[in-house]
Amino acid sequence: MSQQALVLVTTPVAGIESASAFKVVDPATFHISAMDLAVTRGDGIFDVFGVRDGAPVNMDAHLARFARSAAMLDLPAPLESAWRPAIEAAIEAFGPGYGAVKLVMSRGIEGCGVPTGFIYVWSVEDEAALDLSGGISVVTLDRGYRHDVALTSPWLLQGAKTLSYAVNKSALREAARRGFDDVLFVSSDGYLLEGPTSSLILRIDGELFTPKHDLGILPGTTQIASFQVANSLGLTAREELLAVDALDRADAAWLTSSIRGAVPLRKVDDREYEIDSDLTARLNATVIRPS
Amino acid sequence: MSQQALVLVTTPVAGIESASAFKVVDPATFHISAMDLAVTRGDGIFDVFGVRDGAPVNMDAHLARFARSAAMLDLPAPLESAWRPAIEAAIEAFGPGYGAVKLVMSRGIEGCGVPTGFIYVWSVEDEAALDLSGGISVVTLDRGYRHDVALTSPWLLQGAKTLSYAVNKSALREAARRGFDDVLFVSSDGYLLEGPTSSLILRIDGELFTPKHDLGILPGTTQIASFQVANSLGLTAREELLAVDALDRADAAWLTSSIRGAVPLRKVDDREYEIDSDLTARLNATVIRPS
Repeated sequence: MSQQALVLVTTPVAGIESASAFKVVDPATFHISAMDLAVTRGDGIFDVFGVRDGAPVNMDAHLARFARSAAMLDLPAPLESAWRPAIEAAIEAFGPGYGAVKLVMSRGIEGCGVPTGFIYVWSVEDEAALDLSGGISVVTLDRGYRHDVALTSPWLLQGAKTLSYAVNKSALREAARRGFDDVLFVSSDGYLLEGPTSSLILRIDGELFTPKHDLGILPGTTQIASFQVANSLGLTAREELLAVDALDRADAAWLTSSIRGAVPLRKVDDREYEIDSDLTARLNATVIRPS
Repeated sequence: MSQQALVLVTTPVAGIESASAFKVVDPATFHISAMDLAVTRGDGIFDVFGVRDGAPVNMDAHLARFARSAAMLDLPAPLESAWRPAIEAAIEAFGPGYGAVKLVMSRGIEGCGVPTGFIYVWSVEDEAALDLSGGISVVTLDRGYRHDVALTSPWLLQGAKTLSYAVNKSALREAARRGFDDVLFVSSDGYLLEGPTSSLILRIDGELFTPKHDLGILPGTTQIASFQVANSLGLTAREELLAVDALDRADAAWLTSSIRGAVPLRKVDDREYEIDSDLTARLNATVIRPS
């Protein structure tokens, strides 16, 4: 691993006594207990945003989503007065260049009742330099849940960014086995959802669409920023309940995420799409630029 | 935390160079990287079995299930020649008394490619001493998946014991909010499945039933051992596809797990059940006794 930084957030939530709010530590040594619920149960939350030469990208939206995930898991609210200076310290320790900033908060060591928080920053220069302009191929996989499961069964935590991502990783392995680069999850009743670590944008008849955010999917910060760009370009862009056949009506498609930005899809299953290099570049010029 | 022991398995899978197969360490200090995929993705497996005064209970069945979980997650097979002596060392370090032995193996530190393995043993004297003979109350909650999802969508990892257990913990919080002690998951199409950390046994017309193991549920080692006891008592006991209405036909029910054994259910939703103290005691006398 090249350039990286690790900061422990010693007061991740209100009500914890500590001499300082955070501590910059050596990422190469161990700082997590084997009994931490992050380790043993994936019982916690995370979020990731980009940083370019010291300037965080769209950080407030990610902090808001981090707090939303905490609420969905009945965790105490992240203490912003600790997380914000801790993020600053982590970014400073990381230095210049293009990096990813990961915020993690678990329910803490089992039986202890005090959440564990840390911030990890690592270089994604290589990833950012990857030329994805030719588009990637995506396979649709059933997520197994109905499209309305977040409304009927909130205990399934759909739409929270939790540390329990084994299924997302497993789906990516399944895609690789089938010769695809990434995954587009669909609901068991035939609606488009999201990728394991990304949001979907389709262009249909010159308008942009993304699956409705109440479908138990993550509100994509990059998708939202992309839609703002689209609006500023005079394009209509909106959330909608999209059945799988929307893929047949689309002429262009993207998966969006904080680090890779808007990545054009050249193929979803056996459907082929146009690569709109101009629009892709416009979306990314604004999306990845620090706020 | 009272009595406990922690052993790192330094050669958790084949092909890793290490001076020794394991290392007994201080559980009160940190041994896990913040970048371990157990922490950041819940990307790994675990299993838990009991130990009584140095004697492991039903260990081989748990090791077999641990290996099965590894295969389902495309992890290398746990190296038994390392895990078995490491478990022995952990049990020795723990000492006498009643404990739980947890085996954990993650995909390791991101980008590193070497799995992380450890064994944690802790005292469950308090839990074992809990008098559950009066039975517990259980609420049925939708798991969101169809009953056949493990067959149609193996990437959802249903039936693997993964470190991504946030949903199981969330379901238990939902049960508490509704005033129940535990959860019985049902499929979205109305079949009985399992508890978040247990298997279901129903008695209907004098026979014992458990949901079929191919329903994307964990093959319960304690349920299997209980059925062996039942058979030795002359009771018929078998796996079956059980629709939710089987709860109406049952006159007694249990949730089984390694540490608590067979716990009688006094109530599932608004259905009340007989507590068969005699049969419960017989099941537990054999189930918890070291193999």
